Amino acid sequence: MHQVRFRDPAGSVRRGEWHGDIAEGTSAGDQTESGDRVSFGGETYALDEVDVLPPCDPTKIVCIGRNYAKHAEERNEDVPDRPLLFLKPPNALSSHGDTVTLPAGKERVEWEAELAVVIGEQCRNVSEEEAMEYVAGFTCMNDISNRDDQSEEQNWIRGKAFDNSAPLGPVLATPDEVPDDASIELRVNGETKQDSSIDAFIFSIPELIAEITTYVTLEPGDVISTGTPEGVGPLSDGDTVEVEVEGVGVLEHDVRVP
Amino acid sequence: MHQVRFRDPAGSVRRGEWHGDIAEGTSAGDQTESGDRVSFGGETYALDEVDVLPPCDPTKIVCIGRNYAKHAEERNEDVPDRPLLFLKPPNALSSHGDTVTLPAGKERVEWEAELAVVIGEQCRNVSEEEAMEYVAGFTCMNDISNRDDQSEEQNWIRGKAFDNSAPLGPVLATPDEVPDDASIELRVNGETKQDSSIDAFIFSIPELIAEITTYVTLEPGDVISTGTPEGVGPLSDGDTVEVEVEGVGVLEHDVRVP
Repeated sequence: MHQVRFRDPAGSVRRGEWHGDIAEGTSAGDQTESGDRVSFGGETYALDEVDVLPPCDPTKIVCIGRNYAKHAEERNEDVPDRPLLFLKPPNALSSHGDTVTLPAGKERVEWEAELAVVIGEQCRNVSEEEAMEYVAGFTCMNDISNRDDQSEEQNWIRGKAFDNSAPLGPVLATPDEVPDDASIELRVNGETKQDSSIDAFIFSIPELIAEITTYVTLEPGDVISTGTPEGVGPLSDGDTVEVEVEGVGVLEHDVRVP
Repeated sequence: MHQVRFRDPAGSVRRGEWHGDIAEGTSAGDQTESGDRVSFGGETYALDEVDVLPPCDPTKIVCIGRNYAKHAEERNEDVPDRPLLFLKPPNALSSHGDTVTLPAGKERVEWEAELAVVIGEQCRNVSEEEAMEYVAGFTCMNDISNRDDQSEEQNWIRGKAFDNSAPLGPVLATPDEVPDDASIELRVNGETKQDSSIDAFIFSIPELIAEITTYVTLEPGDVISTGTPEGVGPLSDGDTVEVEVEGVGVLEHDVRVP
């Protein structure tokens, strides 16, 4: 089941179901003309009747750096010997169908397609063996990265935590819907820029959950974003970005450079 | 007025008022024997009848590193040319009267007394001139720091974002109650370890708010912790820590090392 959070035509926030092409990952298409629909409580809406929201309401987004060897290589960085962790706060969220305004006056702000893990239950000190019991499902994320500042600061706040630097969605897919070797792709204006598989992870999802919860309690709705494969590059004003994870579907957002 | 959040004897969360010695900064004393009281809705309680909570409910804590020159010096670090920012998520919170359990198996986990700024209204792109309009008030924080991991990671997550690494409180004091040269002190088991004044800040509170909101929206209840003066040192099992900021009062918590 593909769960979706949306504001219905009356402005009420609903946790409903997504039906149609985008969430099945077969075609992105034009939202308003596609067959995609969302439903809640017996009512069904076309996508242009609702505002799609991030599929969860995290207290924090724990991100992983350099979790694909070929991305570490393209950034001229070593593969870490334990997960490289960083944080995005809730102000970083954005969602399917939104326009993200990038920080002003930067030379290079880049896309990073990622598989995002959504936590289902409060947990701490979780073993690798039991880790998947705490996963509600998966979604897509674009870990938008302001390289100008990231390269100059100790902690990546200006670089990674700025407003709307974490488009997330469109749906929450249950773990059984996403294969262990799911493809992950990113397209800019329809052109494929990243094309890999989550079986190239350096640290597995259970390893990430075990490491994070040694230090930090995860709450229901919290997100772990699992790192990006090779093929990152700079965003430009007017770009349309699609992040597609097999079994989840396509997260689409626009970009504005002030 | 010294505002306090607490759980009353029925378990209801109240935003009330604090009356008495600790919040006036004249004496820490024994909570249960002091004259300190909290009140809400015409009811007054002794401190041992209630659970004191952090005075706000932040979506994020934006922390400042090396904002006192003498602390940068004792850590053998340069003074930064713009604010060094890092994040603690809500799981880092702890409050007055609580026992903080430190991460297991670490050699050196240290105290850091800080003045914390609590935001009153959602804001972005705030100028230095208007910055104080968005400040609800001030409180005390201990930015507990796990040096073992902080020294080995790019972003300070294991080092600074672990559970209960941000004791915060006890009250929210309005800006007019805290002088520009307020003293800031930290005592461990009654012995003074840090003793400075907030007039030694490298970056002022308006400068910090302007810089942060260039990138990040601040929400009501969000916290900016303004950095620590010289005199940091390691915590031990059973320690009682007091952070005192003139005009706010005394934040007290215990420490447990597993």
